[in-house]
Amino acid sequence: MSIILDGKATSNQIKEELAEQVLALKAQGKRPPHLAAVLVGNDGASLTYVGSKVRSCQKIGFESTLIQLEDNITQAELLATIEKLNNDTSLDGFIVQLPLPKHIDEEVVIDAIHPDKDVDGFHPTNFGKMALGMKTFIPATPFGIMELLKRYKLDISGKHAVVIGRSHIVGRPMSILLSNKGNPGNATVTLTHSRTQNLADITKEADIVVSALGVPNFLTADMVKDGAIIIDVGITRVTDANHPKGYVIVGDVHYDQVKEKASYITPVPGGVGPMTIAMLLQNTMLAYTRNAS
Amino acid sequence: MSIILDGKATSNQIKEELAEQVLALKAQGKRPPHLAAVLVGNDGASLTYVGSKVRSCQKIGFESTLIQLEDNITQAELLATIEKLNNDTSLDGFIVQLPLPKHIDEEVVIDAIHPDKDVDGFHPTNFGKMALGMKTFIPATPFGIMELLKRYKLDISGKHAVVIGRSHIVGRPMSILLSNKGNPGNATVTLTHSRTQNLADITKEADIVVSALGVPNFLTADMVKDGAIIIDVGITRVTDANHPKGYVIVGDVHYDQVKEKASYITPVPGGVGPMTIAMLLQNTMLAYTRNAS
Repeated sequence: MSIILDGKATSNQIKEELAEQVLALKAQGKRPPHLAAVLVGNDGASLTYVGSKVRSCQKIGFESTLIQLEDNITQAELLATIEKLNNDTSLDGFIVQLPLPKHIDEEVVIDAIHPDKDVDGFHPTNFGKMALGMKTFIPATPFGIMELLKRYKLDISGKHAVVIGRSHIVGRPMSILLSNKGNPGNATVTLTHSRTQNLADITKEADIVVSALGVPNFLTADMVKDGAIIIDVGITRVTDANHPKGYVIVGDVHYDQVKEKASYITPVPGGVGPMTIAMLLQNTMLAYTRNAS
Repeated sequence: MSIILDGKATSNQIKEELAEQVLALKAQGKRPPHLAAVLVGNDGASLTYVGSKVRSCQKIGFESTLIQLEDNITQAELLATIEKLNNDTSLDGFIVQLPLPKHIDEEVVIDAIHPDKDVDGFHPTNFGKMALGMKTFIPATPFGIMELLKRYKLDISGKHAVVIGRSHIVGRPMSILLSNKGNPGNATVTLTHSRTQNLADITKEADIVVSALGVPNFLTADMVKDGAIIIDVGITRVTDANHPKGYVIVGDVHYDQVKEKASYITPVPGGVGPMTIAMLLQNTMLAYTRNAS
């Protein structure tokens, strides 16, 4: 039996810490941190994510602004919105919820965000700083996983970590952070992806597996070593007529099997997901502190 | 017996291609590409490297400028020099030879170089673009290794590559480039370093080993798999009274042993070293092309 890495509880703890910091700021007569979120279109999952981010802000006393734009907005109009947000001194940071409609070039949009306001940490300058071990905004999902490892005091130095998936927002930064100098950090990291041959042979040797693949129940018990730390980033919506929402969220890890072998494991939901939001708020606080100093 | 990946010959070929491009430019009445190198102090190895870069420029018809500064220059003075180079429109790119004297913060200096002139690819913005798979200046040593793999048509997709060393200028970018989408690319990459446990167990499983450790003759035959591709980035000066220079350059790989097992191998000298210079010139040509367009 494994110990559950409780992302929900840890996330709540971080939010409480942030809420206390906001109270202290207000007591000093200062304005609270302010995050804006830009949402283009009406994608159901995106609406849920953005809504959750805005609610989290309100809960801890951050100011938040939701900017909803039509699905058929032009790229130029979106870039003009970003330019306005870049120059808005009442705003510490903002995010543009991905994915964007197909007629808009995400790379151009991300590049237009001022690095000092890029609390998602997706801008090349921030991504480069992260990769070079410099202080910067770290993409929220891998940042949340690092924070979870840290708060559970899991020592990964010299251990073999295997990351599944090389996306720009999870797998790639995750592989870098795990192997960068620091604590947690200093792991030996193997980054695997769609072209990887004999994946199971690799995951079976891992002390830590981070799966960010998006295939429900992909990681089965035969693919993991006894005592491994298992981090599940997968959040796939699977249709389920018995559920009031019509779907359930399923992770990459075959939880019921793997929890019997792992030493530590994140559940889905309640693992990595809540940590992602907490770290976005943490990044916003960092932006605020830099702004104020 | 293995096939030698001849960096010297490949580098010469790239330089010839660049020389032809310069001739074509001149025939059109255009100025040639222009690279400047800033050297602080009188470190022997640095002098050798910078000298070699300048000579290579001259050989292929690039304009080159060497800026030599005293060891005791202040950081502010160095930053002022960089600012001048950033604004010099007759210049396509420049490098600041590392390492710098201890009283100067390398991170601050690199950050001061305009990303569009950073032909070393060390600036966070360029490093981030590289990590995100965007077109940019790629650090010359890993870029040279990718080019060598490409010109020898070695298919590494899905293969297991092990990189030894996580430096910002070789190991880290190497691990990213090998696993990024592309050809060559798409490898499964394990990045190892000083904290890695059981390194030999890991290298023994590798289809490709890139060693950037700086320990002479470190990688012995028992550490590599039959038929592996071996890339040696090590260039350690080892005292040798019998040699006219008083030292010899020794790689990380125990060449005589490992060449019997490897399928392909880079020699030292004549492997990765010459490729590094060729790719710096290639980056300068890219800067020129962007400048001109």
